[in-house]
Amino acid sequence: MRYLSDIEIARAAKKQPIQVIGAKLGIDATHLLPYGHDKAKVSQDFINSVQGNKSGKLILVTAINPTPAGEGKTTTTVGLGDGLNRIGKKTAICIREASLGPCFGMKGGAAGGGNAQVVPMEEMNLHFTGDFHAITSAHNLLSAMIDNHIYWGNELEIDERRIVWRRVMDMNDRALRDTVVSLGGVSNGFPRQTGFDITVASEVMAILCLSTSLQDLQKRLGDIIVAYTRARTPIYARDIGADGAMTVLLKDAMQPNLVQTLENNPAFVHGGPFANIAHGCNSVIATNTALKLADYVVTEAGFGADLGAEKFMNIKCRKAGLAPDCVVLVATVRAMKMNGGVAKPDLGAENVQAVKDGCPNLGRHISNLKAFGVPVVVAINHFVTDTDAEVDAIKAYAKSQGSEAILCRHWELGSAGTVDLATRVAAIADAGVAQFAPLYPDEMRLFDKIKTIATRIYNADEVLADKKIRDQLRQWEDAGYGHFPVCMAKTQYSFSTDPNLRGAPSGHSVPIREVRLSAGAGFIVVICGEIMTMPGLPRNPAALEIGLNAAGEIEGLF
Amino acid sequence: MRYLSDIEIARAAKKQPIQVIGAKLGIDATHLLPYGHDKAKVSQDFINSVQGNKSGKLILVTAINPTPAGEGKTTTTVGLGDGLNRIGKKTAICIREASLGPCFGMKGGAAGGGNAQVVPMEEMNLHFTGDFHAITSAHNLLSAMIDNHIYWGNELEIDERRIVWRRVMDMNDRALRDTVVSLGGVSNGFPRQTGFDITVASEVMAILCLSTSLQDLQKRLGDIIVAYTRARTPIYARDIGADGAMTVLLKDAMQPNLVQTLENNPAFVHGGPFANIAHGCNSVIATNTALKLADYVVTEAGFGADLGAEKFMNIKCRKAGLAPDCVVLVATVRAMKMNGGVAKPDLGAENVQAVKDGCPNLGRHISNLKAFGVPVVVAINHFVTDTDAEVDAIKAYAKSQGSEAILCRHWELGSAGTVDLATRVAAIADAGVAQFAPLYPDEMRLFDKIKTIATRIYNADEVLADKKIRDQLRQWEDAGYGHFPVCMAKTQYSFSTDPNLRGAPSGHSVPIREVRLSAGAGFIVVICGEIMTMPGLPRNPAALEIGLNAAGEIEGLF
Repeated sequence: MRYLSDIEIARAAKKQPIQVIGAKLGIDATHLLPYGHDKAKVSQDFINSVQGNKSGKLILVTAINPTPAGEGKTTTTVGLGDGLNRIGKKTAICIREASLGPCFGMKGGAAGGGNAQVVPMEEMNLHFTGDFHAITSAHNLLSAMIDNHIYWGNELEIDERRIVWRRVMDMNDRALRDTVVSLGGVSNGFPRQTGFDITVASEVMAILCLSTSLQDLQKRLGDIIVAYTRARTPIYARDIGADGAMTVLLKDAMQPNLVQTLENNPAFVHGGPFANIAHGCNSVIATNTALKLADYVVTEAGFGADLGAEKFMNIKCRKAGLAPDCVVLVATVRAMKMNGGVAKPDLGAENVQAVKDGCPNLGRHISNLKAFGVPVVVAINHFVTDTDAEVDAIKAYAKSQGSEAILCRHWELGSAGTVDLATRVAAIADAGVAQFAPLYPDEMRLFDKIKTIATRIYNADEVLADKKIRDQLRQWEDAGYGHFPVCMAKTQYSFSTDPNLRGAPSGHSVPIREVRLSAGAGFIVVICGEIMTMPGLPRNPAALEIGLNAAGEIEGLF
Repeated sequence: MRYLSDIEIARAAKKQPIQVIGAKLGIDATHLLPYGHDKAKVSQDFINSVQGNKSGKLILVTAINPTPAGEGKTTTTVGLGDGLNRIGKKTAICIREASLGPCFGMKGGAAGGGNAQVVPMEEMNLHFTGDFHAITSAHNLLSAMIDNHIYWGNELEIDERRIVWRRVMDMNDRALRDTVVSLGGVSNGFPRQTGFDITVASEVMAILCLSTSLQDLQKRLGDIIVAYTRARTPIYARDIGADGAMTVLLKDAMQPNLVQTLENNPAFVHGGPFANIAHGCNSVIATNTALKLADYVVTEAGFGADLGAEKFMNIKCRKAGLAPDCVVLVATVRAMKMNGGVAKPDLGAENVQAVKDGCPNLGRHISNLKAFGVPVVVAINHFVTDTDAEVDAIKAYAKSQGSEAILCRHWELGSAGTVDLATRVAAIADAGVAQFAPLYPDEMRLFDKIKTIATRIYNADEVLADKKIRDQLRQWEDAGYGHFPVCMAKTQYSFSTDPNLRGAPSGHSVPIREVRLSAGAGFIVVICGEIMTMPGLPRNPAALEIGLNAAGEIEGLF
């Protein structure tokens, strides 16, 4: 038989008006700000009105290290959410928004797949409700105001060599990584070297995702450090006078977006920092709102559990007072085989030994997650070529690690394929057995926090950081930022900083290239290895294939 | 008495649901894509379905050269639209969208004023429905794909010194006017000098505003010339493979936005090139759609009639087969006084002689507009300090020029203040007396087109252009672009290229600094004098005052 493609399934979706979806969570139509007929923002007034509600159970979906075989973390998030609704549990899904840049590069959409998708898929992968554009505008307004301040006399005595605030664009554009601006003479300002990051790497994105209210948002925006004087005194966005206007630009973007799954269950899609360069979870305001409206909330954290889940626990949960009741770790037979050394073209053939050889990657993630005091269930996202023997190998391995693995067929069957997983996850969440705690206390020294993650999560032997970096961390401690968590920026493909090192490596070193203070977001970014904050396009970018077909439908986006 | 401020009036507006506004034009709710409860896009399907309708009458609102006193062109457009509806004429308004950049600089909002406003004012001055963000993304995707093409081997043999496609941002950011990109080594590409324009100056903006369908849009995007080879062969956006993806990014932006006036009459707000650097009118698709749905359409062209109306006639009407049935030329007593030499602080005192001294600016615009074969009515936008004698002076002057001037009090009274104007304009439009023709034929040589505008509209003696510019124009003629109209980029403050030369100067010269081919938009941009395509922020930008007040309302945006 031929399976329908993701886009064919999405186009055939029987969507309900977004007001009907909102009603399932008790949101009146007057509190939904529609964007077309199938998307809406939930009004700030409504969000404020439900703060007294009891909170539902929080379920985190994370995954093994991603491989080119694909794991289906979002697909499983959606499938589990639909499965919980199917067994009668009032459930909402919370995922992050897609970034425009990579959609034109090589990454496909970010709305699930098969019969476990969130719709409208095309719009979610394009402008959606404009949140990322608002973040780009707010970020770049601050940039323009810094150069403008200097242009008109530099009253704050900013040292032009010590401006740390760059510009952003939601585009994969390597030409903008490293630039010189203000050329062309007196009327264009003072020439200096700077550059652009992709919008998802902006501190404004992180702030939007961590803020609990518009007041909190403005305070954090004001706290951003944009530059230093010659005397190393920090200059804040507040000093530049940009925090009010930035808040105005972000006012609508702060309201979470509501859409639906193919099975017409509610999904919040809001915020979207990349987990390899930022903290990588959807917004606190969306998660909190969902918890007040549903009995179960299924959310996800970006990339593998070493990056996304670690930061979900140590940053988002710590900052927002959240605690997951159960963690679902997604794995596939194919990804286990790749971790076991099989090349992509050979993944179709049964190879139980390779599955077994790859399982230590899964095992490392299980034990890491347990270290946070949360129960872990492995979801095996079934692929049509998987054999029973291969699936059984993963089940047996998970059991040997004190966990359990459950086969899911949501890609093929939708919620009918996740009844077992949903039933088990609900039982665990209801049992209240989680004893969540972050991995390190606020009071730990910054460098020790990095070492803790490197040794306990990455299983590294050591952290390599030169004196300049250690001194910088100490200066920030002296300046009162020592209680911040650390936000690791690292390749998603390995526990180590080498993207080619699959499986469960040990004995490796974690080199720190750079540290950045995000004083508004409230963390220290630790850039490890070669990770980039502005991607480039591949030789044959997806954009070449994207266009409208004769029926006016979008082709090539996925 | 104290008059309410624009923002106080806008906040007190009794808005109707956008579906009610759409119904006034026969647009079913299923064909309105809502953005919140008070904004909607009109679906492409609906637009296609009304193409067979009879067209209504087209009324253009334009103005004398702007002065710091303010003329109120948009205010009068809205007041006239409301007035026509008040006297029983089914009327729609068509205006351009506001640019985000200047809102944070010094220009206030662009949604009218007093009791003649379009709402929701705040959102129209911020992200609105995201059209400009879509244009920014489409433009910059093409930019990224050009550098990416070169990075991966430059199969098209683009001469890196002859890339003519820049980047854009919807921000006043002088630091980006002139930049070097791709620094930092091999992985970031080949360093080269380039820069950013403001989004409203993008050729993509002009293309969106002139396209009649998505097919036309894609064809025009493909026709953009982005670079040349060493052999001077043009490289098109189509060669880069960007036209399909750009069309996808602009798919929603092509659908006109519907909002309402304070009196709940329909207004289309769509597209927004600046008239000093681009062609400066709202979109053809919005104007055409409005004409199919209403008996009268009131639209405006940017800045003074020498810029906006000239390009409305010679570019938009020519390209779209439109013809105005009546032109309304907005003037104020205060602006006449400034043209007559009075300084801004002294405008409050009666000064009939200064009004008379300034009137030749008005007279020049009247005769210019008549040269297009259209009847002209002068609307005197009343200000509280105006005296009867001053108003009478304008009326007498207009009569002496074979026109007529009608006093309007829409700022104070709404539609009750424009009944006289509306009655007269409707009578003229109904009479069918206009005999519209563009000022020059397609076949005229490009340089002669420039000379025609300079001498007949600006009343200049000569056009100054060095051999390089004349040769360039000849080359474009040889390449088959000789039939294009010319799009003059010039200061809006004077008929001349000197912003300080008020009144009706003659005997001056028009220096051409640069010419640019917009092969997709279908015109030649002629940059005169010192006009900039990327503005800067002033010493105390409006952004410093913009913020949320304790009630969560936006302050300082207007």
